[in-house]
Amino acid sequence: MRQTNRRIVLAARPVGEPKPSDFRLEEVPIPEPGPGQLLLRTLWLSLDPYMRGRMSDAKSYAKPVEIGEVMTGGTVSEVVRSHDPTFAPGDIVLGMTGWQEYAVAEAGGLRKLDPSAAPVSTALGVLGMPGMTAYTGLLNIGQPKPGETLVVAAAAGPVGSLVGQIGKMKGCRVVGIAGGAEKCRYLLDELGFDAAIDHRAPDFPERLREACTKGIDIYFENVGGAVWDAVFPLLNEFARIPVCGLIANYNMTELPPGPDRTPQLFRAILTKRLTLRGFIVWDFAAQTKEFVTEVGQWLREGRIKYREDIVEGLENAPDAFIGLLKGRNFGKLLVRVAS
Amino acid sequence: MRQTNRRIVLAARPVGEPKPSDFRLEEVPIPEPGPGQLLLRTLWLSLDPYMRGRMSDAKSYAKPVEIGEVMTGGTVSEVVRSHDPTFAPGDIVLGMTGWQEYAVAEAGGLRKLDPSAAPVSTALGVLGMPGMTAYTGLLNIGQPKPGETLVVAAAAGPVGSLVGQIGKMKGCRVVGIAGGAEKCRYLLDELGFDAAIDHRAPDFPERLREACTKGIDIYFENVGGAVWDAVFPLLNEFARIPVCGLIANYNMTELPPGPDRTPQLFRAILTKRLTLRGFIVWDFAAQTKEFVTEVGQWLREGRIKYREDIVEGLENAPDAFIGLLKGRNFGKLLVRVAS
Repeated sequence: MRQTNRRIVLAARPVGEPKPSDFRLEEVPIPEPGPGQLLLRTLWLSLDPYMRGRMSDAKSYAKPVEIGEVMTGGTVSEVVRSHDPTFAPGDIVLGMTGWQEYAVAEAGGLRKLDPSAAPVSTALGVLGMPGMTAYTGLLNIGQPKPGETLVVAAAAGPVGSLVGQIGKMKGCRVVGIAGGAEKCRYLLDELGFDAAIDHRAPDFPERLREACTKGIDIYFENVGGAVWDAVFPLLNEFARIPVCGLIANYNMTELPPGPDRTPQLFRAILTKRLTLRGFIVWDFAAQTKEFVTEVGQWLREGRIKYREDIVEGLENAPDAFIGLLKGRNFGKLLVRVAS
Repeated sequence: MRQTNRRIVLAARPVGEPKPSDFRLEEVPIPEPGPGQLLLRTLWLSLDPYMRGRMSDAKSYAKPVEIGEVMTGGTVSEVVRSHDPTFAPGDIVLGMTGWQEYAVAEAGGLRKLDPSAAPVSTALGVLGMPGMTAYTGLLNIGQPKPGETLVVAAAAGPVGSLVGQIGKMKGCRVVGIAGGAEKCRYLLDELGFDAAIDHRAPDFPERLREACTKGIDIYFENVGGAVWDAVFPLLNEFARIPVCGLIANYNMTELPPGPDRTPQLFRAILTKRLTLRGFIVWDFAAQTKEFVTEVGQWLREGRIKYREDIVEGLENAPDAFIGLLKGRNFGKLLVRVAS
């Protein structure tokens, strides 16, 4: 066992795009678990777009990471020492222990994983927070019906890819939006989407329109920005828009130039009777068991697929996270902190 | 019986605020009812903000009034002649026969009114389209819960006044926004609202904030514009916003200057998990019976009040309608076309 804990703390609040100097790698002593606590060794660290929000001190649904504090993040870890009777050394657990190699955690915040049921990394992806985000947002807010057109942005990512696959199971025509030809091919060839549109194409709005000849009934919003602008005129009456993420806006330092299009949006909400509803996954925490059961079943039956994008070593987390905000990842972005 | 039918047609599509010359009063022969049709004499014409939308040819949920066509509108009429066995001369009926003194109508589009049950003009107000708009929008989308803060704009109007009164019955703290001291006094003294804020006050946003110390859980949107701007920062997590009307925007000829605040709205939708949902009353047509029964009961029990603003004579309809868009009316605006 190493004698030091490497961890990545927030060094500075980013202005616009985060840069490497906004993070700092530290070496500190491995902490000691107190009564009822456990010492954990991180195996997998999840990198997710929401972390950009935590780096900022703008008011949001969760409190920001403080300067000098370890970056927040979901993890899969091995129990090294346990002062709690329900966990034993060697157990694999899901927690929120952040960007570090070792962590002390309360037993109450951990969930034991069964490595024989599914690869443990899936607890951070398709069977974890991103998967449940897709499942609850699409089913509760999107309410897909057979024959409807579902458009999902960031469609090759862990949320979007599951949104699209569930949409197919519910009988929707599914149109995925992703960055680049390789991701688009994946959506069509591997995931069975009906159409895949590259948002980097110069004629992206026209291509989206051609793919949505019957308009859009559900738009699962992960992105905002130019993708929203292309979707907006295609929305049908009674369209539902689960607002899950706005990755194109996260690095925005000021509002875009005018005119102010807010009245245009309100007019469409009224005349088309749109529903826009924001959510975060924990709003639907009561559906956790249903999600794990149903998506776990689909996974075992081979009805859904997932893809992981694995980065080796904690020290590479900042660069991978910066890339995530630019769409550089292809699948669920994970850092293998230890094997 | 007069030998001519006076009617008001759309003379020109307004640019911005409608002006008298956008309307034209015509005298034409009284039309003849064909088989299965009725000749109706208009008693009451309802003037409502949605009519501004019909004067424009921008795409909306209903088709526009054509140039030269009679202005659309809900009416209460007396049957003069009937070629349908279910209606007899002297019957009072609710229809959509527009801005005119006489009309020919199909029996299928009419509902017989019982003058002994309630004043027949209420079929255009508290027991009609505006009342049902309030009832269905608040209950289905607003979902009021005891202890919540409900804010309603255009609160002295037929929709807003019922929204607030139903909100009180559901246990909400109700804050009304209206134009001028007299309307505000009415909300407090007659309707029992908890607070009433004059949107014309120079310190309107501050006064609204002071009236909503626990934030806003439901905002029933009838207005848009500066009222929305004052409401927006006060919205609580999980706030619901039934988007019913945008009267402040109806005369808008171009979008306001920048910056484009759309990303700000989306950020709030996401982080506060807001629900914005547009609706028109007919989306909830299945609840008509429930509405008539329940609100009729409340009215008979004296649990709700309503107010009518009556204009005499069809020829005064254009001026009254222009005033409606400026908030000049006080209560449900009706034209007494004949007695």
